Amino acid sequence: MPVNEPAIGIFDSGVGGLTVLRQIAKRLPNESLVYLGDTARVPYGTKSADTVIRYARSCADVLLKESVKLLVVACNTASAFALETLQAELDVPVVGVIEPGAESALAKTRNRRIGVIGTTGTISSGAYPAALRARDPNVEVFAQACPLFVPLAEEGWTTGEIPLRIARTYLEPLIRNRADTLVLGCTHYPLLHAVIAQTMGESVAIVDSAEATAEAVAAIMEGMGIGAETGSTTYRRFLVTDAPEHFGRVGRQFLGCDIGPAEWVDVQ
Amino acid sequence: MPVNEPAIGIFDSGVGGLTVLRQIAKRLPNESLVYLGDTARVPYGTKSADTVIRYARSCADVLLKESVKLLVVACNTASAFALETLQAELDVPVVGVIEPGAESALAKTRNRRIGVIGTTGTISSGAYPAALRARDPNVEVFAQACPLFVPLAEEGWTTGEIPLRIARTYLEPLIRNRADTLVLGCTHYPLLHAVIAQTMGESVAIVDSAEATAEAVAAIMEGMGIGAETGSTTYRRFLVTDAPEHFGRVGRQFLGCDIGPAEWVDVQ
Repeated sequence: MPVNEPAIGIFDSGVGGLTVLRQIAKRLPNESLVYLGDTARVPYGTKSADTVIRYARSCADVLLKESVKLLVVACNTASAFALETLQAELDVPVVGVIEPGAESALAKTRNRRIGVIGTTGTISSGAYPAALRARDPNVEVFAQACPLFVPLAEEGWTTGEIPLRIARTYLEPLIRNRADTLVLGCTHYPLLHAVIAQTMGESVAIVDSAEATAEAVAAIMEGMGIGAETGSTTYRRFLVTDAPEHFGRVGRQFLGCDIGPAEWVDVQ
Repeated sequence: MPVNEPAIGIFDSGVGGLTVLRQIAKRLPNESLVYLGDTARVPYGTKSADTVIRYARSCADVLLKESVKLLVVACNTASAFALETLQAELDVPVVGVIEPGAESALAKTRNRRIGVIGTTGTISSGAYPAALRARDPNVEVFAQACPLFVPLAEEGWTTGEIPLRIARTYLEPLIRNRADTLVLGCTHYPLLHAVIAQTMGESVAIVDSAEATAEAVAAIMEGMGIGAETGSTTYRRFLVTDAPEHFGRVGRQFLGCDIGPAEWVDVQ
């Protein structure tokens, strides 16, 4: 058994993708994982398609140098803008978070009225409505950008009056449109799960793309026969393009445990 | 009179520095201005000193190619981390926003208890307390990072219950410490001037670094004799490293008027 058995590579603009890593680690405990947070250029959610594609390419380059066997784009904005480019250009399978999230939402909705929330970039890309309608042309999709949710999550202001009032302001149109399912279309949003669920009401199903993505990764690995053998020595590495110590601190909130020191890599 | 008379170059991580440009345009109406917003890498406020210095250098390079006679670092985080580097490396005078803001605060305080608010980067740099104490060793400084203020300003949520509650949460320690002067240590914050002033109470003086910086620029230009002649043909150009159309739209909020189309430049 080689020491450097190929890992699953996961990248995001920053810490948010750790919610995806957490679900993959839970679903595939035998797999080694290498995570890259592009903290020198975070966030992607306010940037243009061209710029996000350029950034996503350079993140993929970093991870492919680490000998990964499958790449997870654990960032909704990068999945929206860059997934097809990466799939066309790379030799390893590339999994985004949007398609799994869309499938999970369609499995849960009863009235075919689905809400999607995300960054400005993800929402303006129209990627979720496109993925949902490609699978069910009759579904109605209500999309809402929620720019304050990411800084709220990073501040750790996840309970109390301030996040509740902000959530009410953003989610009111989705409630009025009787969405019975809501996709958390940003990897930061699971940290605000409680306040979002409380605002939407208990009859609304909340879809966390991270869980759905972990399932998709497991299915692909099984289909391709590229899973690690049981009993393999597994490792986890965390790479960042800026401020490793800050990443370690904020990362704990997202992963629910200490991640140890992150390694700095250059993406210039 | 040459058509391309040298301009004042102004850069910021994004749109925020337009509040500085606005004050410079008001104070020095005969001067041509070239503004660069590094929207491909915005924000600087969460990034490390090394990364901000690297970004500031490349912004200065872009502007120096446009033949500027004076450079304004219209970003508190870049002023905190990169001003000395740029002053040492460049042949034109370089003006930041921190020293002028500090001087203005010292001129206004009566009890020598000064509050400073800014991004995580600006506050953790300690640049404002250092600038204030260098001028008055007996001044007491209370610094507070306010990460939600930038997205609030960019969302345009500048009035009502949500910004008021967020402002109360951040500013409460400064009120408790009886600061009688508050420095808006981030170029976005003038948009939240009303809510910040209301929260602090009317006895507290609010210092907008943009105004103080415009005064400092005027003084340097006069001292060096590099002002434009009266009646010169003046121009204004807006350069961005990403998403020119978004910049035009958000920029209007900051400048109070249309800025026309921005030009895209590469900083790779």
